[in-house]
Amino acid sequence: MAQSLVLKARMGKALRLPMGSLIRIVNTHGRQVVDTWAFAETDISEFMSMEHSRVHMGRVNPVAGSVLLTNRRRPVLTIVEDTSGGVHDTMLAACDIYRYQMLGCTTYHRNCTDNLREALGELGLVATETPSPLNLFQNSSIKPDGALVIEPPIAPAGTHVTLRAEMDIVIAFSACPQDMAPTNGADMMPKDAEIIIL
Amino acid sequence: MAQSLVLKARMGKALRLPMGSLIRIVNTHGRQVVDTWAFAETDISEFMSMEHSRVHMGRVNPVAGSVLLTNRRRPVLTIVEDTSGGVHDTMLAACDIYRYQMLGCTTYHRNCTDNLREALGELGLVATETPSPLNLFQNSSIKPDGALVIEPPIAPAGTHVTLRAEMDIVIAFSACPQDMAPTNGADMMPKDAEIIIL
Repeated sequence: MAQSLVLKARMGKALRLPMGSLIRIVNTHGRQVVDTWAFAETDISEFMSMEHSRVHMGRVNPVAGSVLLTNRRRPVLTIVEDTSGGVHDTMLAACDIYRYQMLGCTTYHRNCTDNLREALGELGLVATETPSPLNLFQNSSIKPDGALVIEPPIAPAGTHVTLRAEMDIVIAFSACPQDMAPTNGADMMPKDAEIIIL
Repeated sequence: MAQSLVLKARMGKALRLPMGSLIRIVNTHGRQVVDTWAFAETDISEFMSMEHSRVHMGRVNPVAGSVLLTNRRRPVLTIVEDTSGGVHDTMLAACDIYRYQMLGCTTYHRNCTDNLREALGELGLVATETPSPLNLFQNSSIKPDGALVIEPPIAPAGTHVTLRAEMDIVIAFSACPQDMAPTNGADMMPKDAEIIIL
């Protein structure tokens, strides 16, 4: 039977997921970016890598059917279904305290990097690095001159992406807390998402 | 007085470089990709990060004047001059033994990941991870549909890029050994490059 949890706005969550599992990320309210990471369950130094995945996919962004690879070029996740309109990002770092400082924030701002650390910490895990995430639903538009522009996501409310684990993994998510740029929509208001283990 | 060294085809080299130094990478024979990394001299866990640099540059590829950032979003290198035609890549992982295995290689093939490890090792350093490199002169073309195609470089013989160190760094280079794809030109023949400390 499917298990569901709410990924609260601005928060993270990590889960152990056996090989072959299907997991669905629902954009409950629409236009919310969900940073996504995957680590080999047996060795956290092996993780999903955007730079290795782009070589393998021959694409800058994944589409239904795309297979994402680890930093040892082993399949780790497959996108088996995508009802969101298919706009996702592989190019932007997770937000962090430094990013919010650069945007003018003078107090602590929740961020995807710390969300990952906290979520892994709840499982007793420590990552040596913050891998570049798969930014589900993020709309980073590449212009013909190479400019990279962060635009509001297009994913409508209730749409989703379903992923299959291609090895035993720890999967982690962060409902991106970005509220100083239109990353999560023109209203700049982070929202909940939903995670369903099918 | 300028110091020069030949970066031999298929090989790597790392150097300590004080803040403010200028270093020139010359594409001696043309069309050779030079994978480039930079690490904070005082803490190798801080390194030049393509995913953080893309956010800061607002571009997928650097141009003259672009400032590259570390994974803590501090300026680490500036492109101060570029006579090569300005085509470089920030999206592709360094090649490694897994990549050559996937291309059908059944014996050891030199690769940029091992070149980085060897080059750092000569300085007594061990990196915990292989950061995604700045692939100088690499021509990875993004198509309107998101396809990412590795095409032969356009950099003519004798052209160069000059970088300025924005902190005390260890800088590392690999003359990419790729000879099973047109990464280093249609002749698929890796060639020497030249490194000049100005």
